[in-house]
Amino acid sequence: MFKVKVYSVGKSKEAWLQEALAEYTKRLSPHMEIEWVLVKTDAELASKVSPPFIVLDVEGEQVDSPGLARKLSHLWMAHGSKIHFVIGGSDGLDPVLVQKSVWRWSLSKLTFTHQMTRLILLEQLYRALQIDAGTAYHK
Amino acid sequence: MFKVKVYSVGKSKEAWLQEALAEYTKRLSPHMEIEWVLVKTDAELASKVSPPFIVLDVEGEQVDSPGLARKLSHLWMAHGSKIHFVIGGSDGLDPVLVQKSVWRWSLSKLTFTHQMTRLILLEQLYRALQIDAGTAYHK
Repeated sequence: MFKVKVYSVGKSKEAWLQEALAEYTKRLSPHMEIEWVLVKTDAELASKVSPPFIVLDVEGEQVDSPGLARKLSHLWMAHGSKIHFVIGGSDGLDPVLVQKSVWRWSLSKLTFTHQMTRLILLEQLYRALQIDAGTAYHK
Repeated sequence: MFKVKVYSVGKSKEAWLQEALAEYTKRLSPHMEIEWVLVKTDAELASKVSPPFIVLDVEGEQVDSPGLARKLSHLWMAHGSKIHFVIGGSDGLDPVLVQKSVWRWSLSKLTFTHQMTRLILLEQLYRALQIDAGTAYHK
C-alpha cells in the first residue's frame, strides 16, 4: 500500500473539485492512501513538508504518462512507498524545497490552478498504477 | 463576442465535470460562448468539424499560458473570432484533421482523459482572456 501525502497551498471549497477528488481517491484506494495537507501560504509549506517528496513545478522535467509510471516505480523503489507531493502556490516554490526534492516534475508549460493541479495529479497517479498493471485504462 | 465550438469524442456524464464546465462557461460568458459538439468516434469527428479549428494533440506545440494568450490573439485576428477546438479520442486524431488545423496544440506530454482535457481547455481560455485583460487572475 502506497501512502501519499499531498501538500498544497489553498482551499478546496469547490463542490465539483471535492467530488472529482473523491472519485479518484476511491479508485486509488485499493493501492494508495491519499492524505491532503492544505496550508495557507508557500512559506508554511516549507515548514510542514517531510521528505522524501516530489515538487510539482512548471520549471521541472516533463515526462509522458508511461514515463511517469516508470519514474514513480523507480522513486518508490529507491525511497520506499511513502513519497509525498508538494504543489506550490502562485508565488512559486521555495528554492530550498526544490533543492531538497527527489524530483522536480512539470505537468505542463501551462499554468494551472492549484485545484486543477490536484485533480490532474490524482488522475496521473491512477493512470500510472493502471499502466504498471497493464490494464486498458491507458492505451 | 467569441463563439467557440469544442468538438470532442465521448460523454460528459460525470456530475462533477458538468458542474466544473458550467462554472467556467459562466465565467467566460461575458466574452465567449461555448458550444459542445460531442461525438462517439474519432471518425465521426472528421465529418463534423468545420474550419477554422485548433487541434489538441499530445504531439503538438506546447506554449506557456501567456504564450497561449498571444497565440490565440494572433489566430483570432487572422481567422476571425470563430475558431473552434478539436479534442481527439483515445485512437488519436485523424491526420487529415491535423493537416487542416490552423494550429496543433499540446497541453502536456501527459495523456489526460478527454473529460479533464475539456476542463483544462476552458480554464486556459478563461486564463488567456484574463491575461489579455491584465487582471490579477494570472500572476
